[in-house]
Amino acid sequence: MKVLIGKDVEEMSKIAADYVMSYMYQEKQRVNLSITGGSTPKRMYELLVPQVKDTNRFDHVHFYNFDEIPYRKEDREGVTISGLREAFFTPAGIPEERIHKLDQFNYQTQDERIEKDGGLDMVILGVGADGHFCGNLPQTTKFGDLTTRVECDRRLKDRILPEFNDVEEDVPDYYITMGPRSIMCARHIIMIASGVKKAEIIKTLMEGIVDENKPATVLTLHPHFTLIMDEEAASLLS
Amino acid sequence: MKVLIGKDVEEMSKIAADYVMSYMYQEKQRVNLSITGGSTPKRMYELLVPQVKDTNRFDHVHFYNFDEIPYRKEDREGVTISGLREAFFTPAGIPEERIHKLDQFNYQTQDERIEKDGGLDMVILGVGADGHFCGNLPQTTKFGDLTTRVECDRRLKDRILPEFNDVEEDVPDYYITMGPRSIMCARHIIMIASGVKKAEIIKTLMEGIVDENKPATVLTLHPHFTLIMDEEAASLLS
Amino acid sequence: MKVLIGKDVEEMSKIAADYVMSYMYQEKQRVNLSITGGSTPKRMYELLVPQVKDTNRFDHVHFYNFDEIPYRKEDREGVTISGLREAFFTPAGIPEERIHKLDQFNYQTQDERIEKDGGLDMVILGVGADGHFCGNLPQTTKFGDLTTRVECDRRLKDRILPEFNDVEEDVPDYYITMGPRSIMCARHIIMIASGVKKAEIIKTLMEGIVDENKPATVLTLHPHFTLIMDEEAASLLS
Amino acid sequence: MKVLIGKDVEEMSKIAADYVMSYMYQEKQRVNLSITGGSTPKRMYELLVPQVKDTNRFDHVHFYNFDEIPYRKEDREGVTISGLREAFFTPAGIPEERIHKLDQFNYQTQDERIEKDGGLDMVILGVGADGHFCGNLPQTTKFGDLTTRVECDRRLKDRILPEFNDVEEDVPDYYITMGPRSIMCARHIIMIASGVKKAEIIKTLMEGIVDENKPATVLTLHPHFTLIMDEEAASLLS
Repeated sequence: MKVLIGKDVEEMSKIAADYVMSYMYQEKQRVNLSITGGSTPKRMYELLVPQVKDTNRFDHVHFYNFDEIPYRKEDREGVTISGLREAFFTPAGIPEERIHKLDQFNYQTQDERIEKDGGLDMVILGVGADGHFCGNLPQTTKFGDLTTRVECDRRLKDRILPEFNDVEEDVPDYYITMGPRSIMCARHIIMIASGVKKAEIIKTLMEGIVDENKPATVLTLHPHFTLIMDEEAASLLS
Repeated sequence: MKVLIGKDVEEMSKIAADYVMSYMYQEKQRVNLSITGGSTPKRMYELLVPQVKDTNRFDHVHFYNFDEIPYRKEDREGVTISGLREAFFTPAGIPEERIHKLDQFNYQTQDERIEKDGGLDMVILGVGADGHFCGNLPQTTKFGDLTTRVECDRRLKDRILPEFNDVEEDVPDYYITMGPRSIMCARHIIMIASGVKKAEIIKTLMEGIVDENKPATVLTLHPHFTLIMDEEAASLLS
Repeated sequence: MKVLIGKDVEEMSKIAADYVMSYMYQEKQRVNLSITGGSTPKRMYELLVPQVKDTNRFDHVHFYNFDEIPYRKEDREGVTISGLREAFFTPAGIPEERIHKLDQFNYQTQDERIEKDGGLDMVILGVGADGHFCGNLPQTTKFGDLTTRVECDRRLKDRILPEFNDVEEDVPDYYITMGPRSIMCARHIIMIASGVKKAEIIKTLMEGIVDENKPATVLTLHPHFTLIMDEEAASLLS
Repeated sequence: MKVLIGKDVEEMSKIAADYVMSYMYQEKQRVNLSITGGSTPKRMYELLVPQVKDTNRFDHVHFYNFDEIPYRKEDREGVTISGLREAFFTPAGIPEERIHKLDQFNYQTQDERIEKDGGLDMVILGVGADGHFCGNLPQTTKFGDLTTRVECDRRLKDRILPEFNDVEEDVPDYYITMGPRSIMCARHIIMIASGVKKAEIIKTLMEGIVDENKPATVLTLHPHFTLIMDEEAASLLS
């Protein structure tokens, strides 16, 4: 495990953006990156966009989302891919043929498709205060799981509700996520964390316990795992 | 996970020996391999010895044992390193400066020393019918553990007794092992298995469950894990 | 430059075969190897065949010839590919879809096709007493050349005559070869040499002069160049 | 050969800086970079300095100069290392133990020391309008040369004079340079070029001729050679 601490969100985002760029510069025929939506990487994408748009230098880099929350009622793309489009794909001008969508229609072949594409070179993901990563919330998946569909019980619906502007009837009955085993297959994993709300789970990750109730703890066993955080997230480390 | 099946012990040993050789041929300043004692790799070492001895082509390859059972009463090296010397180091003419012993005196710095040496390029290990690997017997270590000293209760002593020719008073009160986390840090893991006694655990490993009561299941999460077995060990696979 | 000396042709061939195998074991989606015909590698292929046939472990390994002498009169494959089939492809059971033929009909797209296939991971080649490699005989190609068609003047025809059992009317007016630039593009180059007839050119290669009249001297500038020879070929080295 | 064209010096410098950073982010125990002085990389260093200073993330990155012009009369460091200190080492806060000076006192062991340090991961260098790179001016070194001392005849002294503010008596009788063979040993080579004065030599490099009178042409044979330039330098390319 490699640990990098930036003094604030800006510096954490800069470090993370530099890491992502370093994979995009890899001398390979094709580079496959799985990237995260949500609020933590917002600034990182702002730093990446000007470096990536208007150039053909990264035409060999392909992108994958690793989870998806479908909208229930509308015929539109899910929450994750919509967020990634807005934060990164659209402003960066990534063409459709390099965006590999995971959704409710194709999740059963996600792991197989990625393997056929050459495997993921890197996954960059966040961590929840409850220890979840991607859609692997505690008690929803097992360490050994590949990409799966998770049914939403009341507890999960309540968690997801804010993503749907608290409109209960929009909340879907299930969502999709790559499992712990899918993510561990990637050649490198980068986790980003910021803010004091993440300090407790960061402390847990650094203590070295691996516990299925804190799903992200398994990622610390990956031989190429890098944790990038700000000082607030690191505040409980000695 | 990559799975290779040889038709018998001879073919499994040949495949495993070829893999080990391919790491020894890596174009690196230094290659660090952690290798296994016991009966499963016996034939593999017989195939390796003539390729490795009497040449300076592999002077950059260093060897590490990953567990050790010290003798209780005698001032002599432990069971594992003694076995490795007899099966491989001595006939292959590996000089002392490339043999990095783990024992009861230095285990607390094993992980640190390996990291300083550049990390392990590969670990080759066997698997027990009970799902143990190295000295990680069920209920003795946790997935998150680094190298540790395991105290031997009655159950463990009974298990180890045959290694000491059933002489109870030779059996030590503890042994040493690199933990699941230590092994997962290696860049590649190769597991070998032969014989019908291993068919059940092989089936478990292939089913994708990760369970701390079958410690070896965690290794299947490593992004570069290769399983080499004979047809008997594979006999319960569909 | 890495230099390995076996005591005789047997040992040189064993080392070379081990190297070739180590590339076939590389953990990649596809491995591209360009391999040499002629008499020097004969024993090497004998050692490789039993390791490669009757297994699907190497289904990701693709083969390329790097030169070709077409027959003039017959509607048949050229000298090089015919030799490779006899020595290796046929006994090893390599299927057609993994044999990528270079010939007089497709040479102009050879470099482009190889690049599209992901580039060559390794080229294994011999060296002539006159310093030629592949079909790059002195004064026929320049260091900067890619794959090319070489017209055969009288001097060249005399050289090639024995390959055609001294039947003058079979000797073609031209042959095909990957150029020095094509070969230098490969990620690794392995040169094999045996016999006292090669001692002089080996000495030249080791002295470090780079001279277009001894085409093989340029290969010593490749950052991953390995020279494997027997003691006779090494006999003029101090 | 990989070719990247930025629209002006600013964009070329940004691309080059990103490349250098991508090597500094490599997951290795130690990264060895050989970097260039002179005016072409000036802006690149300005972009690198804020990314490199005040962090311990790059403590594994070591720096090497590849040529040196010693001052004749003074007991002070040479022209190249002085320039590198001013442009990069000092503002970036690189400590002495990671600066590996090549000078007139140690040049005979430069290649050996670099090999012992694990080899160069990357060299970034410029190109002269006359086709020189490092101190390999036409007719001063051969393609096969390692690090060497070049005696300055009248012609060379006239060339170097401006570096010494046209003070003739400061101009040394010799200078030091890594040779073409030394540079080709690096795992990656990056060449930067800007301005219309470089357009002619860039055209020559792209045409594929390899000519000892234009020393830089040999670098195009390196399997991992990247050429980064601005539009002016690219203006004669079709």
